[in-house]
Amino acid sequence: MTDPRYDVVAIGNAIVDVMAPCEDELIEELELAKGGMTLVDTERAKELYDAMGRATEISGGSAANTLAGMAALGAQCAFVGQVAKDQLGDIFAHDIRAVGIDFDTAPREGDPPTARCLIFVTPDGERTMNTFLGASQFLPPAALDEELIASAGVLYLEGYLWDPEEPRSAMRRAIEVARNAGRKVAFTASESFVIDRHGDDFRALIEEGKIDILFVNEHELATLTGEQDFDAGLDMLKDKVPTLVATRSAKGAVAIQGGTRAEVAAEPIDKVVDTTGAGDLFAAGFLTGHTRGEGLETCLRIGAICAGEIISHIGARSEKDLKALVAEKLG
Amino acid sequence: MTDPRYDVVAIGNAIVDVMAPCEDELIEELELAKGGMTLVDTERAKELYDAMGRATEISGGSAANTLAGMAALGAQCAFVGQVAKDQLGDIFAHDIRAVGIDFDTAPREGDPPTARCLIFVTPDGERTMNTFLGASQFLPPAALDEELIASAGVLYLEGYLWDPEEPRSAMRRAIEVARNAGRKVAFTASESFVIDRHGDDFRALIEEGKIDILFVNEHELATLTGEQDFDAGLDMLKDKVPTLVATRSAKGAVAIQGGTRAEVAAEPIDKVVDTTGAGDLFAAGFLTGHTRGEGLETCLRIGAICAGEIISHIGARSEKDLKALVAEKLG
Repeated sequence: MTDPRYDVVAIGNAIVDVMAPCEDELIEELELAKGGMTLVDTERAKELYDAMGRATEISGGSAANTLAGMAALGAQCAFVGQVAKDQLGDIFAHDIRAVGIDFDTAPREGDPPTARCLIFVTPDGERTMNTFLGASQFLPPAALDEELIASAGVLYLEGYLWDPEEPRSAMRRAIEVARNAGRKVAFTASESFVIDRHGDDFRALIEEGKIDILFVNEHELATLTGEQDFDAGLDMLKDKVPTLVATRSAKGAVAIQGGTRAEVAAEPIDKVVDTTGAGDLFAAGFLTGHTRGEGLETCLRIGAICAGEIISHIGARSEKDLKALVAEKLG
Repeated sequence: MTDPRYDVVAIGNAIVDVMAPCEDELIEELELAKGGMTLVDTERAKELYDAMGRATEISGGSAANTLAGMAALGAQCAFVGQVAKDQLGDIFAHDIRAVGIDFDTAPREGDPPTARCLIFVTPDGERTMNTFLGASQFLPPAALDEELIASAGVLYLEGYLWDPEEPRSAMRRAIEVARNAGRKVAFTASESFVIDRHGDDFRALIEEGKIDILFVNEHELATLTGEQDFDAGLDMLKDKVPTLVATRSAKGAVAIQGGTRAEVAAEPIDKVVDTTGAGDLFAAGFLTGHTRGEGLETCLRIGAICAGEIISHIGARSEKDLKALVAEKLG
């Protein structure tokens, strides 16, 4: 096994976020699932966009946000995801490359257009996401560069992309390629509704020992294990997943690895402005620490610092120099 | 003459801003005119975008920003500008309508795409703009709804759009329509380089008495009059333009109307984050006061409050409730 060329390669949704502030009344009026992520079709996407205020466009996607954080921390990263050959696709490709991430998935011709996520941000900082998957759902297994997958220390997968069939097949294939190359597979469950739809698949992957690093939040842990008690949920998974990481919003995060359990408090911040990307950036910090061989507690701490930065402003990609911030806070 | 249906109708560039922070070194390396606006062709736009970091897209355009501010202050507004039938065009149309502005210019089929302005924001808050005019330069005189122009109390024109031929003809025609309907014509010189190119046209319009309200900053005033001294420059124009408004960045602004001169200091703010849109929002505040029949000093004050809000954050459209802010500050 040669040394990996990349610290991480991620497969995820290639999405442009369309964000606008709104009042709680609009969430009710539009019958949105506040705080959650809902898949929407063309018609519903149009209806929601029409009801949305003046918006800001910024490249997003859960795994892509995680990679952007890792790249900012100095990790070598590559991304695999499907955009269409259109303006939003150009924007996504520009932005991910601009932060130093290799991205070579060929854009897809014709309809549907590049994916977008309509994000309504309420005054409490919660984001309600409505994703039109567009081209993103057509990432074909054939688009996988198996040499690329084998050349990264960690393969990182987002649960959101388990919904559409083609990317799911691509991710299954990527897991095999990574494991055969002796690499680690990291997986984020993304959201409890995703587990509602695909829990059996996820549980099977875990039982088969195919997930080396698993990221869940407390709701996802409960949905995945069927166990409402947080610690009981962790107990059910800790012997099946070599590195288990569970985040708990304001209550911080827990990781269990090889029988060792570590905890970290949430980073104190002045004001939660927008929670978009908190989990993505926590994963970025944790994984960066992990790929550098840091101890469990330090990995958690880097995750918490990155998550704290991202929720203190609008948008899911960092505004500060994350590397300097982490260096300063770790001391 | 019937009462106007709109307070203002503006003709301007229909542009999406593509903004990214950058260091001064990059400005030098790319040989950009720091603080200025440069028109760029497709090739140069691509080169600059490739060199640009991760960006945020937000609808812009000078006159459109002014209207967005006026709409936020409660004015009835309509916009005329040319987008292409593409994703950026959809974004522009959505955003301007989302703030309550009527916008009915039909999108243009085929190439070129919707205009974009690549904005590099340096740590001192200055913005260096590079505009790819795209579809915006093809606003045809035929697209003018003359009834619309005649139905607004004020016709507001941006100097930036004087560069391309078709919109220039459209604006000349609009001036005639507005004047014949007994409406006022307001004009912003936009930038001194624009005056370098079209000063003779602008001076002729002024001499012919076709401009009722003129917005200039001190550089533009000097370029337009050939007079380096600020007060001497004002003296040259004050009898030719019924309402003359001159802004001076941190030094505040001056207005002269019917022999009366009023001044206002710049609004004190904690930190200049990004000066994009300062002039646009000053015009928004001043014009809103003017259309309401406020005194000259109050008009200047509303302008200063709006400009102060916009430079305290990234982006050229307001993040706060401008109406409440102005009400609070005016007392």
